[in-house]
Amino acid sequence: MHSIHQYQEFISDYLQSQYEIKEPKNLYEPIHYILDLGGKRIRPVLTLMTAEIFDADYKKALPAALAVEVFHNFSLVHDDIMDDAPLRRGQATVHEKWNINTGILSGDAMLILAYQYFEKYQPKIFRKLAKLFSKTALQVCEGQQWDVDFEVRNDVTIPDYLKMIEYKTAVLVAAAMKMGAIIAETSKENANLIYDFGLNLGLAFQLQDDYLDAFGDPETFGKQVGGDIIENKKTYLYLKALAFSEKKEAQQLTSLFAEQLYDNSDKISSVKEIFNSSGASKATQDAIQEFTFKAFEIIEKMNIDDDKKSILRTFGENLMGRKV
Amino acid sequence: MHSIHQYQEFISDYLQSQYEIKEPKNLYEPIHYILDLGGKRIRPVLTLMTAEIFDADYKKALPAALAVEVFHNFSLVHDDIMDDAPLRRGQATVHEKWNINTGILSGDAMLILAYQYFEKYQPKIFRKLAKLFSKTALQVCEGQQWDVDFEVRNDVTIPDYLKMIEYKTAVLVAAAMKMGAIIAETSKENANLIYDFGLNLGLAFQLQDDYLDAFGDPETFGKQVGGDIIENKKTYLYLKALAFSEKKEAQQLTSLFAEQLYDNSDKISSVKEIFNSSGASKATQDAIQEFTFKAFEIIEKMNIDDDKKSILRTFGENLMGRKV
Repeated sequence: MHSIHQYQEFISDYLQSQYEIKEPKNLYEPIHYILDLGGKRIRPVLTLMTAEIFDADYKKALPAALAVEVFHNFSLVHDDIMDDAPLRRGQATVHEKWNINTGILSGDAMLILAYQYFEKYQPKIFRKLAKLFSKTALQVCEGQQWDVDFEVRNDVTIPDYLKMIEYKTAVLVAAAMKMGAIIAETSKENANLIYDFGLNLGLAFQLQDDYLDAFGDPETFGKQVGGDIIENKKTYLYLKALAFSEKKEAQQLTSLFAEQLYDNSDKISSVKEIFNSSGASKATQDAIQEFTFKAFEIIEKMNIDDDKKSILRTFGENLMGRKV
Repeated sequence: MHSIHQYQEFISDYLQSQYEIKEPKNLYEPIHYILDLGGKRIRPVLTLMTAEIFDADYKKALPAALAVEVFHNFSLVHDDIMDDAPLRRGQATVHEKWNINTGILSGDAMLILAYQYFEKYQPKIFRKLAKLFSKTALQVCEGQQWDVDFEVRNDVTIPDYLKMIEYKTAVLVAAAMKMGAIIAETSKENANLIYDFGLNLGLAFQLQDDYLDAFGDPETFGKQVGGDIIENKKTYLYLKALAFSEKKEAQQLTSLFAEQLYDNSDKISSVKEIFNSSGASKATQDAIQEFTFKAFEIIEKMNIDDDKKSILRTFGENLMGRKV
């Protein structure tokens, strides 16, 4: 087995080895630009790690890992257009640096390029990977559509929200891991269990992202703390706060979330106060722990050595940023 | 063998049979809307026809045919956003009827749905189809990028232009036919020959589209006659006219193509006059005939019965709208 840092290096090296000077430049330069912005590359790391968990050489899993990473970046390029986001990882987004048309077309090409990485595999594996990939990619689109729909809906429930983050975020984490299992040709049971492990870990990860967006340390959290509050995003914290609040407090929260202010610092502290006093913060932390525990329970059902199990557990603990 | 009209019915019926009520509605309704606008469905017709040419049941080719049609419509949805086009087949485009974000996301989902149709095939056929599809889809994106790039370039050559229409239009016609051949499991030689047949026919078809855009009968031509001239599109006619003209005439043409007018009727007749006097019209007709002849020569090399050859020839003749 290798360390996460080593997997990141393998992915980065493999990515660079795949670059060739391809025309038209205006199509391929934005693709290299967004892929070179880096990031933690958690999803492809999981593909390599899972392949090794099930006793395959990580090298065999590199093309699938890159497919996952290229797909993830495709979704970022198109989402950033939809969200009108100027920055991604501290740099200009593709549609800002070039234009919207370039963002659309380069994104389209990335989705196709992702499929092409599976061509390195033999027919049976290829079909399994492409099938899982298509199902997952479609779910990610559906999740993004729910997310867009939720912005103008006032009847979003907690199950609705969990379904949305499952589709938008968790299924790709789950699929990234299952691809490693497919390549390693482990049992169907193991492959399904690792998918479920990834799904629960992905849900915990997204809920933690929601939590940190409000309560994270500005020094260490990558994004602007309070960003979701400024954008009036109906996160788990918000929905739980509404559900737990008395009528008056709920109305206060709703009216705070109808505002677009120049200076948001008062709004952020008022909303965080309600998140705390209503019990929403506690409920969110409980939910994170619940999904993490579920993930860890699934590890126990797998037919793998104990040292492999503990690698998965350690990864989960590190991803959650704390011991649970 | 069946008639083109029958193939169109088969495709339409199969398309309807694939619809199910899928959520989120805002993602799937635009997809059904654009697919139901219809059109001639030339590409999927070619997939079914080719399967039968090589002695397979057309039913076997229906999923691949639909993949081609869904992909083609995906490219229309995204191209219409890029071209800011209000109408498609006389109806509002997806981004006009909904919005740009819906156009982007529904288009993305269509690209993935296209791949999913190949899942109806066994691993070996699946891999061949998906591989050909990815290669083709990427070329279509590249062709679209060249097309966008050419708008602001003044050094576009005839070979550049032919490469652009080959990628943007002809490769999908060629791939649609080769898919029929792959499904019929004919020889590699036949599959490659039918691809080349489709490629040349696709080129002839696009050049004829350029020609008819200027010289078509307004009564029968589906689009606005002179549309390319109004939009200053550097078509084959334009590039040939520039190449054939003396300096003065070339300058006149260039300056006409720098104009954005409220009333374009004078511009259209002036440009058409130059297309004729320079010999560009004749050269375009010659090129159409040349590519059609090339396609017909390829038919002769195929290892199929004469009656099948004559079906391909008749299809080509009908598509070109005249006996050549």
